[in-house]
Amino acid sequence: MTLSKTERKIIEDSIREIKDFPKPGIVFKDITTLLSDKYAFGVLMNHLYQRYKEYNLDFIVGIDARGFIFASALAQMLGIGFVPIRKHGKLPYTTIGEKYSLEYGVDEVEIHIDAFRGQKDARVLLLDDLIATGGTANAAATLIKQAGAECVEACFVVTLTFLDGYKEVEKKTPVYSIIEVK
Amino acid sequence: MTLSKTERKIIEDSIREIKDFPKPGIVFKDITTLLSDKYAFGVLMNHLYQRYKEYNLDFIVGIDARGFIFASALAQMLGIGFVPIRKHGKLPYTTIGEKYSLEYGVDEVEIHIDAFRGQKDARVLLLDDLIATGGTANAAATLIKQAGAECVEACFVVTLTFLDGYKEVEKKTPVYSIIEVK
Repeated sequence: MTLSKTERKIIEDSIREIKDFPKPGIVFKDITTLLSDKYAFGVLMNHLYQRYKEYNLDFIVGIDARGFIFASALAQMLGIGFVPIRKHGKLPYTTIGEKYSLEYGVDEVEIHIDAFRGQKDARVLLLDDLIATGGTANAAATLIKQAGAECVEACFVVTLTFLDGYKEVEKKTPVYSIIEVK
Repeated sequence: MTLSKTERKIIEDSIREIKDFPKPGIVFKDITTLLSDKYAFGVLMNHLYQRYKEYNLDFIVGIDARGFIFASALAQMLGIGFVPIRKHGKLPYTTIGEKYSLEYGVDEVEIHIDAFRGQKDARVLLLDDLIATGGTANAAATLIKQAGAECVEACFVVTLTFLDGYKEVEKKTPVYSIIEVK
């Protein structure tokens, strides 16, 4: 189940480009205009639903903060649980952490140790809004495994294919990109 | 449309209490155990859907980051747009900001100036996970009005009624609390 040309155009046209955000030289993909457009948001979420309804998923994992938006809505549509991965210190219970490199320095994301409710080999989809260098997504895929589940696929609404982040994630889990920016 | 006793118990029982988080003396309401429980999450979201389907809403506003989880899922269920309110500096386009007081210092939340797509008097629900002192929620209700929309209701999954935050919000907009902690 992939996207039709018409669906792709509706979604692409709804994403706004912001030049020089968050710093000079970067063209930021603003998905808030997609989310506030009930038609485009519906097309995207319906596509995700159609694709993943046959995957026998148990949980959808979303990454803080924009990833929550898509992951939670899809979990509800599929009638399954939602699990957050957050920056260090944000989750209140016992966590597992995974560090990753930034341009300057190191960051860390965490998952609750009992995120998948003790279910053995839970089937999990990782869903995020965008993949660039892939540091967070890679760390998230590692955390899902460390918490005892299987990351069946990693899905990104927007993939920056001029960066190699998605290739790193592909080494450990299948990647599905909805919109590719070359 | 209010919650049945059974529904309330399912939701209440699914929320975990974490003592002394984020600091000593505070009992933190951990909603991640609600979200990962497909049954409890479904009961909550179905209740929100049943309540708000007759409200003729145009948008649901969610507050960064946990508010996104409920607001996005409900927007998708109702077939309407989702609009984020975020901490200062996170939204990429032109914003309106509103400051609010913290225990020590001041914080600021922002909304995109065109969040409601130029629609006049859009009917908006503000939905957040929890209200305590109400600083963020109050600022968010103000921002919705400043961006040209009507905040029809402010809904919180958990309301700490031993704090007066919800009373401040009630001065400008109706408040609906799902779970009250006395």
